[in-house]
Amino acid sequence: MFITFEGQEGAGKSTQIALLYNYLLARDANVVLTRDPGGTEIAEKIREIVKDVQNAAMSKRAEALLYIAARAQLVEEVIMPQLTGGGIVLCDRFADSTMAYQGFGNGLDVDDLGTIGSFATSGLVPDITFYLRIDAKEGLARKLAQDKLDRIEQKDISYHMDVGLGYEYLAKTQPRRIIVIDGALPQDEVHQLITKHIENLMN
Amino acid sequence: MFITFEGQEGAGKSTQIALLYNYLLARDANVVLTRDPGGTEIAEKIREIVKDVQNAAMSKRAEALLYIAARAQLVEEVIMPQLTGGGIVLCDRFADSTMAYQGFGNGLDVDDLGTIGSFATSGLVPDITFYLRIDAKEGLARKLAQDKLDRIEQKDISYHMDVGLGYEYLAKTQPRRIIVIDGALPQDEVHQLITKHIENLMN
Repeated sequence: MFITFEGQEGAGKSTQIALLYNYLLARDANVVLTRDPGGTEIAEKIREIVKDVQNAAMSKRAEALLYIAARAQLVEEVIMPQLTGGGIVLCDRFADSTMAYQGFGNGLDVDDLGTIGSFATSGLVPDITFYLRIDAKEGLARKLAQDKLDRIEQKDISYHMDVGLGYEYLAKTQPRRIIVIDGALPQDEVHQLITKHIENLMN
Repeated sequence: MFITFEGQEGAGKSTQIALLYNYLLARDANVVLTRDPGGTEIAEKIREIVKDVQNAAMSKRAEALLYIAARAQLVEEVIMPQLTGGGIVLCDRFADSTMAYQGFGNGLDVDDLGTIGSFATSGLVPDITFYLRIDAKEGLARKLAQDKLDRIEQKDISYHMDVGLGYEYLAKTQPRRIIVIDGALPQDEVHQLITKHIENLMN
């Protein structure tokens, strides 16, 4: 089973994916927790390039291709072996992020991104995706309270609003795969909503 | 005018592109010499990842996408501004290398690579390409005599033979753009053949 978490900065993805990971581990599941971009040595190097605030001159197309390259590496090294072995993969972000950020946020053609994405992942699609919805401004404020913003997070609010629209579009068009959860709810409530979906899926 | 140099390791590309650069400078041409992957700060960082012998675990798809990402950055930052300004660009490798190395060498679908390549470069194609043909074994021996081999150069001889077949295929199917030159000829003879073509093109 391939489970992904999506949403904007500060929506609580990292917290919720860690909670679900521990929940599954406590049930003796064969589960791997990873993140995209990242999760392998090579993909983490690509992540550094794409997130580095020094790389302000990065072209939109190069940015999209770097994210997708990191994903190709992660799928081959981590995700496919684990799924083939019958295990569960929890992934913090995946292809939906490229659609929302590079497609809707940066204005690149989403059909092109879909084609390139399929080349990278050999058409792999998550079984279930939890989209933690949060107001873009509120999420960025939460994030800023915890940490420095990276090159993507630093972009202006209208960019982040467009990313949010992208996620709403994806959720609307793929309602069976993408479960929308209100990221403004208390942590334990969000976690319970998620585990309920997981239990349904496993039974 | 957009001029590229292609060919396998040890074919003499770097030498010939430098000779042509000096030749054009001596004629007061507005010319930029660059290389792909590379030529900008961001693209050079991508080049490091892709060439590093440490990154032996790199997936074929990630490798292709990294090369193409670097090219997107180079086109936007260097090549398009120079061409738009009416200048000449000399580029050491370009999209043909992806076809030969990642397509023919690594066995990735060349149509997919073409589609992704067009996304990256907005369909930019060189006006003329000099393919310096050399025997794969001889070229590698030449290279090894000068320098350590990088991750791509280290691959086995059958890989390099496939890359050579790729170049032959490209030259056969695009004979107007791709000029085949015998890389085993003496340096000054190769240089004269190249400048003859350039003079014809400029007049």
